[in-house]
Amino acid sequence: MGKKIVIVGGVAGGATAAARLRRLNEEDEIIVLEKGEYISFANCGLPYYIGGVITNRDALLVQTVEGMSKKFNLDIRNLSEATSINREEKTITVTKVDTGETYEEAYDYAILSPGARPIVPPFDGLEEAENVFTLRNIPDTDQIKTWVDEQKPHHAVVIGGGFIGIEMAENLAERGIKVKLVELSDQVMGPVDKEMAGYLHQELRDKRVELIFQDGVEAFLDRGKKVQLDSGKELVSDITIMAIGVRPESELARESGLELGERGGIVVDKSLKTSDDAIYALGDAVEVKDYIQQTPVMVPLAWPANRQGRLVADHINGKNVAYTGTLGTSVARVFGLTVAATGNNEKTLRRLGVTYEAVHVHPASNATYYPGGSPIAMKLIFDPENGNIFGAQAVGRNGVEKRIDVIATAIKGKLTVEDLPDLELSYAPPYSSAKDPVNVAGYAAMNIIEGAAEVVHFHEIDEIVREGGTLIDVREAEEYEAGNIKGAQNIPLGELRGRLEELPKNKPIHVHCQVGLRGYLATRILNNNGFRAINLSGGYKTYTISREM
Amino acid sequence: MGKKIVIVGGVAGGATAAARLRRLNEEDEIIVLEKGEYISFANCGLPYYIGGVITNRDALLVQTVEGMSKKFNLDIRNLSEATSINREEKTITVTKVDTGETYEEAYDYAILSPGARPIVPPFDGLEEAENVFTLRNIPDTDQIKTWVDEQKPHHAVVIGGGFIGIEMAENLAERGIKVKLVELSDQVMGPVDKEMAGYLHQELRDKRVELIFQDGVEAFLDRGKKVQLDSGKELVSDITIMAIGVRPESELARESGLELGERGGIVVDKSLKTSDDAIYALGDAVEVKDYIQQTPVMVPLAWPANRQGRLVADHINGKNVAYTGTLGTSVARVFGLTVAATGNNEKTLRRLGVTYEAVHVHPASNATYYPGGSPIAMKLIFDPENGNIFGAQAVGRNGVEKRIDVIATAIKGKLTVEDLPDLELSYAPPYSSAKDPVNVAGYAAMNIIEGAAEVVHFHEIDEIVREGGTLIDVREAEEYEAGNIKGAQNIPLGELRGRLEELPKNKPIHVHCQVGLRGYLATRILNNNGFRAINLSGGYKTYTISREM
Ligand SMILES: Cc1cc2nc3c(=O)[nH]c(=O)nc-3n(C[C@H](O)[C@H](O)[C@H](O)COP(=O)(O)OP(=O)(O)OC[C@H]3O[C@@H](n4cnc5c(N)ncnc54)[C@H](O)[C@@H]3O)c2cc1C
Ligand SMILES: Cc1cc2nc3c(=O)[nH]c(=O)nc-3n(C[C@H](O)[C@H](O)[C@H](O)COP(=O)(O)OP(=O)(O)OC[C@H]3O[C@@H](n4cnc5c(N)ncnc54)[C@H](O)[C@@H]3O)c2cc1C
Ligand SMILES: CC(C)(COP(=O)(O)OP(=O)(O)OC[C@H]1O[C@@H](n2cnc3c(N)ncnc32)[C@H](O)[C@@H]1OP(=O)(O)O)[C@@H](O)C(=O)NCCC(=O)NCCS
Ligand SMILES: CC(C)(COP(=O)(O)OP(=O)(O)OC[C@H]1O[C@@H](n2cnc3c(N)ncnc32)[C@H](O)[C@@H]1OP(=O)(O)O)[C@@H](O)C(=O)NCCC(=O)NCCS
Repeated sequence: MGKKIVIVGGVAGGATAAARLRRLNEEDEIIVLEKGEYISFANCGLPYYIGGVITNRDALLVQTVEGMSKKFNLDIRNLSEATSINREEKTITVTKVDTGETYEEAYDYAILSPGARPIVPPFDGLEEAENVFTLRNIPDTDQIKTWVDEQKPHHAVVIGGGFIGIEMAENLAERGIKVKLVELSDQVMGPVDKEMAGYLHQELRDKRVELIFQDGVEAFLDRGKKVQLDSGKELVSDITIMAIGVRPESELARESGLELGERGGIVVDKSLKTSDDAIYALGDAVEVKDYIQQTPVMVPLAWPANRQGRLVADHINGKNVAYTGTLGTSVARVFGLTVAATGNNEKTLRRLGVTYEAVHVHPASNATYYPGGSPIAMKLIFDPENGNIFGAQAVGRNGVEKRIDVIATAIKGKLTVEDLPDLELSYAPPYSSAKDPVNVAGYAAMNIIEGAAEVVHFHEIDEIVREGGTLIDVREAEEYEAGNIKGAQNIPLGELRGRLEELPKNKPIHVHCQVGLRGYLATRILNNNGFRAINLSGGYKTYTISREM
Repeated sequence: MGKKIVIVGGVAGGATAAARLRRLNEEDEIIVLEKGEYISFANCGLPYYIGGVITNRDALLVQTVEGMSKKFNLDIRNLSEATSINREEKTITVTKVDTGETYEEAYDYAILSPGARPIVPPFDGLEEAENVFTLRNIPDTDQIKTWVDEQKPHHAVVIGGGFIGIEMAENLAERGIKVKLVELSDQVMGPVDKEMAGYLHQELRDKRVELIFQDGVEAFLDRGKKVQLDSGKELVSDITIMAIGVRPESELARESGLELGERGGIVVDKSLKTSDDAIYALGDAVEVKDYIQQTPVMVPLAWPANRQGRLVADHINGKNVAYTGTLGTSVARVFGLTVAATGNNEKTLRRLGVTYEAVHVHPASNATYYPGGSPIAMKLIFDPENGNIFGAQAVGRNGVEKRIDVIATAIKGKLTVEDLPDLELSYAPPYSSAKDPVNVAGYAAMNIIEGAAEVVHFHEIDEIVREGGTLIDVREAEEYEAGNIKGAQNIPLGELRGRLEELPKNKPIHVHCQVGLRGYLATRILNNNGFRAINLSGGYKTYTISREM
């Protein structure tokens, strides 16, 4: 006799769990309830279909109800919403979305993978607006695409600068629409820190997306044709996308008395069990542990949902598996740039009061003499005591996500920054350099830990100069002329050894170059000549980009 | 008082050691001896300059004698060959290459980074041939490029199908020359196993490179215009590149009585010291330990030379560092394909008598619904007892080296195949899938280890069928019609559950599909219905490509 398992939600987590459940067991009765029309669709591809990068709508439907039912011998019911759970009786009430009919379905195990829905505050004028959309599923996509195809909007407003907001800004811009992006904080793309977001701001502006920071929606006027902001600014809009974040779709769990976290995520243990032994939950709807800090977090990404879907199926079939937390590894394309990150960022560590150090390096994606080589801005954040890696962020045109994946793997392997120089990564001119960017980041971090290179950061240097500190710009004279940090004196690296007598021995000497490398070399020369030199991490490049807001 | 350090060889290992030595210490006297005209050049870029991909010759000169001398306060002497070492006196005899003058130079420490030279057997007719070249340095490059520019060759013969041979074949072909590649073994690109090389063979042939296997040069006739092979075949050649491998340039070490390994590499310990405490050696000239097996190997690649150069400088300056062995991570472009590998391949493991298991998977480089997604053929080799990773190989059009770098990192982190599904790698449609190819390879390997999926390999299946074994092809009828394995019966996956009674319960049932995934699904259905099913790893794709020789 098989078990009877009812899955709520038929997309990333739910469909994965269903497939794996069947692979483990031919006997079990497996029912998938999906309130929408479609199951197993490519959420992540939706913006690109709207933008015309993906041209075939069917390609978004990874599995169909019929196809998947047959392939995996599943009982998949779309347009079927789980509307309540009777935990005593172990039954779920199912409401047919088109007819409103309801019935009870019994379960031995229930799996909740209901996802998260876009946050939509009750703004004034929202109800009357016809041109305001959110994006979560295929019907949303069809609506937006039809609007763009038929109304041919000239002006778009995107509210929110996270993944979905940025992808929509890009895809609308690619369709020739003038886009304004409104963001409440002072940067787009929360997973990276502000100075790293600076590169994205530059790229978005280069591609004619107007960025409006530290402002939010106050109301929609004129049936949505005008978006009024908190600042009083009014934006003309032919189409508005609301993408200010998602909220776990945990009402069903809440109403059935399952434990929820502070921010509404369903609480699960390591085996992804809820507070009810017969009910598992996973994906965007659950609260998980941050892999590094073990603090509760919600990370609405596809990898965790897929991974958890498989683990739940395994656990139900008696395997002793555990989900050990989410690193939050992520990547996005922003026009010609790629931005990727893993682990904790500085903002998080500051909030948690964790002591950390960071380095910025700008190595080339591949051999500079080979076409296509371009700089990657990399930030590595680590524990200065023991070298443990907290996280990494990178932005550039090529090879960005490769380096973040390598560091995500290093973290899972419990490697420290000391081990990064020893990572033997593949090298040929089209792909990397003989010292890979990850090696270079490791070297730079180790030099700080070992005391071979003292560093100061972009946000500290102005104050230091203001208070009378010495700052030497070791770039060439032409570079200095083209733009420099106020108060910096120019002594090109090649002249440094011959001009040591110009420098004070009784106080620290701050040095900087363009990206940090020559500044480091200068530091070494000075330190080995009895000075105390301190390098500006990431150089002039990181310093200037941090002003891009 | 500083130390006096003499470095022999001024390119990858030597120049890196010199730069780091100076960063650690301003006092030391650092002399670099380079017998060639150029130091610190981009060896790895040379083929691409000949092919016209790199257009600026100066870009190949990473550092010049003058520039580097000044930047790092080094005494760099080009056209200066170290011709003998007097270890008692701690002096090196230097011969000026242009004048023949000699002098002695004393050292506290000597560092040997003389590299490796192309192997050139004394073939009949070689001396008279004007059109036979090897490629190691800038003068070689200039000669070949001049020959191509001026003689406008129609027919080229490349001897040797390793990295340099293939890169030269590609670059000559890109210049419109008809290339024949002659290789003694039955595959190109030794670091990968034969079935993986099959994809490269296909690509090379598609790009009109003619491949001649299991044949070698017998003699050069007609001043090199004809290349006679062992088989008797004669090839017309306007230009011939000899690239049959390199041999450590260890004569100087040998003559000064330093210990050499069996194949002529200089023997060094973990701190890269030779048998003489005052002499270090590194790079292509040394024998190192294979990182995984700890057997002696020689790996003439740029990453090890760069890494070792830094470690030697550190050790001389009293740091307690160690080189723990070389994984041999490598990558090459072969026209539109990328091939990459890390760790041990099957050939090596078989030779060493190590028990191993392998899986072949063919996941997409990125979401299949997003443009640019294309399959990566991946092979993961592991210890079936404990899941330790021995090595991995991959071939495809995109994202190939990323997956190999991730696995190389996993190996250094002592992760096993069991940990690969837990690697949280970055995902958005342009970059990967929600289950990254590395995750998929890990799943497939774990299924074998856990006994959930028994597999058979491409080279075993014909014999099994010949001896009366049952083989079910679970692809769709059209796929089966288009080409199939002799003796296979077609039962599409979707029909399998309904046709179980056609199958024998008393003997194993072999199944296969196109790439291994549907075959695995069939295996699960069959096993869970009481059959013993065995899947063909990598499916029809791996089976057919293995025949590409
Ligand atoms: C536009 C967009 C782009 C994205 N891009 C990326 C990306 O590039 N990379 C990335 O990692 N992630 C991306 N994501 C996030 C990713 O899609 C989600 O993290 C993932 O789908 C979560 O899986 P899930 O199973 O928890 O929820 P979902 O995949 O959302 O599935 C939940 C399903 O449950 C159904 N449901 C909810 N309640 C009920 C109920 N009571 N009864 C029946 N059915 C119910 C819903 O209708 C929904 O279909 C993107 C998401 C969107 C919307
Ligand atoms: C065409 C080509 C392509 C390559 N592509 C790649 C690639 O894509 N990826 C990769 O990882 N590796 C590649 N390599 C290999 C890589 O370049 C070497 O592994 C690396 O340069 C080895 O460094 P080394 O310091 O040991 O030797 P080298 O860099 O070769 O330097 C040795 C130097 O020592 C000098 N020398 C020798 N004997 C003496 C002496 N007695 N006195 C004075 N000077 C002496 C030589 O003239 C030489 O310049 C390639 C090599 C070549 C030739
Ligand atoms: C489509 C979907 C149902 C697939 O679920 P799935 O069957 O678990 O996933 P895959 O098709 O990748 O198959 C993986 C299985 O095949 C196996 N496999 C894959 N390639 C293989 C090969 N070549 N040989 C042997 N086995 C292979 C894996 O081991 C794994 O099986 P296991 O879990 O039993 O170990 C689910 O991922 C889905 O609905 N996706 C769309 C929604 C979504 O993810 N959205 C967010 C991203 S856009
Ligand atoms: C050019 C060459 C001399 C460079 O040697 P190098 O100075 O060791 O290497 P790099 O220029 O990459 O600099 C690395 C150093 O800068 C530091 N660094 C790099 N970027 C930095 C940054 N942004 N901030 C701070 N430090 C930085 C690193 O920590 C490292 O210093 P360390 O070793 O003291 O820790 C040598 O690699 C060479 O000759 N290469 C050409 C030959 C060759 O390699 N051929 C084979 C491949 S084609």
